[in-house]
Amino acid sequence: MSIRIGIFGYGNLGRGVESAIRQNSDMELAAVFTRRDPNTVKLFTENIPVYHTDSVLDHKDEIDVMILCGGSATDLPVQTPELAKHFNVIDSFDTHARIPEHFANVDKSASESGYVALISVGWDPGMFSLNRLYASAILPDGKDYTFWGKGVSQGHSDAIRRVEGVLDAKQYTIPVDEALNAVRSGSAPELTTRQKHIRECFVVAKEGADLARIENEIKTMPNYFADYDTTVHFITMEELKRDHSGIPHGGFVIRSGKTGFNGENNHIIEYSLKLDSNPEFTSSVIVAYARAAYRLNKEGVSGCKTAFDIAPAYLSIKSNEELRKEML
Amino acid sequence: MSIRIGIFGYGNLGRGVESAIRQNSDMELAAVFTRRDPNTVKLFTENIPVYHTDSVLDHKDEIDVMILCGGSATDLPVQTPELAKHFNVIDSFDTHARIPEHFANVDKSASESGYVALISVGWDPGMFSLNRLYASAILPDGKDYTFWGKGVSQGHSDAIRRVEGVLDAKQYTIPVDEALNAVRSGSAPELTTRQKHIRECFVVAKEGADLARIENEIKTMPNYFADYDTTVHFITMEELKRDHSGIPHGGFVIRSGKTGFNGENNHIIEYSLKLDSNPEFTSSVIVAYARAAYRLNKEGVSGCKTAFDIAPAYLSIKSNEELRKEML
Repeated sequence: MSIRIGIFGYGNLGRGVESAIRQNSDMELAAVFTRRDPNTVKLFTENIPVYHTDSVLDHKDEIDVMILCGGSATDLPVQTPELAKHFNVIDSFDTHARIPEHFANVDKSASESGYVALISVGWDPGMFSLNRLYASAILPDGKDYTFWGKGVSQGHSDAIRRVEGVLDAKQYTIPVDEALNAVRSGSAPELTTRQKHIRECFVVAKEGADLARIENEIKTMPNYFADYDTTVHFITMEELKRDHSGIPHGGFVIRSGKTGFNGENNHIIEYSLKLDSNPEFTSSVIVAYARAAYRLNKEGVSGCKTAFDIAPAYLSIKSNEELRKEML
Repeated sequence: MSIRIGIFGYGNLGRGVESAIRQNSDMELAAVFTRRDPNTVKLFTENIPVYHTDSVLDHKDEIDVMILCGGSATDLPVQTPELAKHFNVIDSFDTHARIPEHFANVDKSASESGYVALISVGWDPGMFSLNRLYASAILPDGKDYTFWGKGVSQGHSDAIRRVEGVLDAKQYTIPVDEALNAVRSGSAPELTTRQKHIRECFVVAKEGADLARIENEIKTMPNYFADYDTTVHFITMEELKRDHSGIPHGGFVIRSGKTGFNGENNHIIEYSLKLDSNPEFTSSVIVAYARAAYRLNKEGVSGCKTAFDIAPAYLSIKSNEELRKEML
C-alpha cells in the first residue's frame, strides 16, 4: 500500500513535492489543499483532488502524511501546530532563530495527538544541519564553516525590488573562492562576512531612473548589502527573463579539525550541493523524510522531530537488508 | 559520569581511539586489552590499566563500550560476535561483501545478551555509506559515484612488497580529475575502473635488482594494478621514510540526480574527506558512535546496528535542545 501524501499549499514548493512523489514508487499524491478557489488550481498530475484548506479535516482519513508548503514568516508558525493535531506533518520551517519556539509549539500538538511532526526539513536547515552535526561530533577539536551559493536569494531580490525606480531584480549570493580554499587548506581562518560571500545583483530599472542612485541605495542597504562587496548590473527585462529565470542554489558545509595526541593531523570534511532548482531539491528532501514520518508513526512514535532525530535508514525505500548489502 | 571505553587491540586504530577519547569530555579510557604481554605495551595516557585479552571477562563491570580495533580478515569475524555477548561493542569491519554475514552473527549474540553492537563504523564503510544512503533517498533518479584518495592503500603497498627484489613500497590511489569533473558537471558519465583512479607506486628495490622486471610485474599484477594506469617511481629507503611515512587518505561520494516533471533540473550532492591520518579519523568516527551505542543501550535497545540505524543526535555530546538551537 502506498504512502498517501497531502500537499498543503501549492506554490513552488508544493509543485516540487508533486514532482518528487512521482519519483518514489511507494508514495502517491492523495490530495492538494489550497487557499485559492480549488477550481482555479491546475495540477500537473491528472485526477488528483484539489480541496480548499478550510475543508482539510474532512479528509483526515485520506492522508498519511501532510506536507506543509507554506512560508516560515506567517504560514508555518500557525499551520504546523494546528495540522499536527490531526495529521503526521512535515514542514521546512527555516527561520533558524525561531526553531526552538516552533519546536515547542509543534511538539505540544503532536505529543497530544499521537502523530509525528517533522520540522525544518530541507537543505538548510536540513542536510546542512546534519552535516554540521556529524562533522562536529566526529572532530570535536575543529571549526565549522557554512557557505551559500552560488544561488538566488529571494529575500535579497525582494529588497532590491523595493528600491525606488526598480522594476525587477535577481540577486545571487556567491561564495568567495579564496575563502573556500583557505578553509580547505586546514588553516582554520577567521573570516568576516565580507570575506565569505559576494553579492551580485541584476537589476531592471524604470526608464529614466537615476541608475547611480539605485546602485548606491542597493550597495549601502543595511543588513542586506552594506556588509558585502556588491556588484550591480543594469539589464533589460528581456535579459532578466532569458538569463535569470531559474532558481538555482547550493553551498558548502566544511569542518576543519585536528586529531592526534598533539593535534598534529588535520582533516577536512566537506559537504556541498549544486542545485538547479532550490524548491525542487528541498521538496525531494521533504518527500524522503515523509517516508520516515510515516514509518515512525506506524511504530508508535509521536511528537515533534527534526532530521537530527531520524535514523538514516528510515529515509530509504530499500529494506535494511538491502541497505546493508548494497550501500554500506 | 563518564562513558568508560575499553580498547580491544592496540595498533594504529587503538592508538587513534585513545587519542580521540581525550577530545571527548564525556568519555574516559578505562582499559586497553592486548594479545601481547601487557607489560610490554606502553600507552600515551598515564595510569590506564593494560590487560591481556584472555582476561577480558574479568573486567566486564569496568567497561561501558568496548571498541574492537582488530582487522577485518580474521580478528573481527570472531571477536565481535564473542564480545557482543558481554559488552556493548563497536567495530570497523570493512569487508563490504561479508557485511550481511557478519551482521547476522553479531546480531545473534547481541540480541541474546541485551547489548548494542555497532558494526562497520568508520568512513567507508561508515560516513561514505551514510552519504550514499541520504543522497540516493533524496534523489531517486540519479547515479552514485565513490572515488577514493588521494591516499595510501595498505593492501596494494603490501602486494608490491611481495614482488621479488622489492625492499619496501608505498602505493597511492588517486582519483582522476577529469572523471571527478565529468561527474560534477551532471553528465552522469559511465566510467571504467581505469578512468576513475590512477595508482602511483614508490618502490625501494634491492641493490642490483632488475628494475624493468619489477616495474612490469607491478603494472601487470591482476586485480591490484592491471586494470589501472600505474606509475612506478624507484626511490631510496631514506626518501621513502622521509616523504611517504604518513597514512593520509580520503575520497569523494557524489550523487548526480534529476528532478522536475520532465527531469529537467540537475543536482549534485558531494561529500568529501581529506584526511592526514586514516586511522585517527576512523577512530574519531568510532568514538562518536560509542556515545550512541552507550545511550541506545541505556534506553533499552539491543542487537546489531549500523550507522544507518542511528539517529544523528545520538553522536553528539550536545543535548537535543542545544543541537536544535545551535546547529539546525
